[in-house]
Amino acid sequence: MAPTTTPRLYTFAAGDAGPWHITGVRTVIGEGLATAPRLDIVAGVGDAAGVWALRGIASNERYVTRPEKQQLLALQPPLARAEARSAILIPIRKSAAWWALTQDERRDILEEQSHHVALGMRALPAVARKLHHCRDLSETEPFDFLTWFEFAPHDGAVFDELSAALRASPEWAYVEREVEVRLAFDPR
Amino acid sequence: MAPTTTPRLYTFAAGDAGPWHITGVRTVIGEGLATAPRLDIVAGVGDAAGVWALRGIASNERYVTRPEKQQLLALQPPLARAEARSAILIPIRKSAAWWALTQDERRDILEEQSHHVALGMRALPAVARKLHHCRDLSETEPFDFLTWFEFAPHDGAVFDELSAALRASPEWAYVEREVEVRLAFDPR
Repeated sequence: MAPTTTPRLYTFAAGDAGPWHITGVRTVIGEGLATAPRLDIVAGVGDAAGVWALRGIASNERYVTRPEKQQLLALQPPLARAEARSAILIPIRKSAAWWALTQDERRDILEEQSHHVALGMRALPAVARKLHHCRDLSETEPFDFLTWFEFAPHDGAVFDELSAALRASPEWAYVEREVEVRLAFDPR
Repeated sequence: MAPTTTPRLYTFAAGDAGPWHITGVRTVIGEGLATAPRLDIVAGVGDAAGVWALRGIASNERYVTRPEKQQLLALQPPLARAEARSAILIPIRKSAAWWALTQDERRDILEEQSHHVALGMRALPAVARKLHHCRDLSETEPFDFLTWFEFAPHDGAVFDELSAALRASPEWAYVEREVEVRLAFDPR
């Protein structure tokens, strides 16, 4: 068995435990998710005993070009900054039509038409972001992606502007399920 | 839980069972694999009781453009043709350097420099091919990809020419483990 590089699988578990207080669960498109008092983020396949548990893998990047990657690396803040006490988890599922597109067609919609990377760049360095892929994990994952955003409470408007712009973009015509889970850091 | 589309996870299990007789296991690069009498291909997570079991997901395509996809769809034969009694399973792992590249850099090496898609096209319609991704399945998979090739015994030279051309290409500088498992259909 080959040695692994870094652990890349994470479970977002809603229930009674975890340092994040769930302040709201909003259904954006399609089926919703139940609410719960707390959210925990655990490395690996977490305990499914809570209200819900979503799993995803921080995989290799699939769309950015080298200049975009360099710019992202220069601007993006790390996770777990002391001031980043607000977070949002956005699970998304895209349609069969999206997955039937070729790589160049997906990139064209994502960036040339929807400016996904450029919009995300505008929210830097305020909003830290980490993308997790679910689709290849198993055949029964309810979402394709889990994106985790972290920011200082006074930067909430930067996140809201980013998510509004993305939801108005051509890429979002391919989103068939989206939920927004709002959180506050409160380790008790 | 969302309904699943089609089952996409397969396990290639080497042991005493299965309709494929293993005629040879050749280490091409890096660590090898043990040999066994037979190979079975099962949907889902197979039994790990045999000699080895490799799992992969037939995921969405990540490199081809629309014109390439149309050409592939027009030319590629289905699996399980009556005459396709020869098969080859090629598990491959690529290096950390490959995975640190951006999508456009990987596409450039794969196609513009190495002509991976075009070379595969030249082996059509003789050689049927199915790619399975392992990398996102878990953190402990020994390979990144499992490619399954099927052809009539008299087309063996077409496959050999394809694999020789790919192994001589710039893309293969990023391959750090490769094994070639040769098989003959023999359901007994």
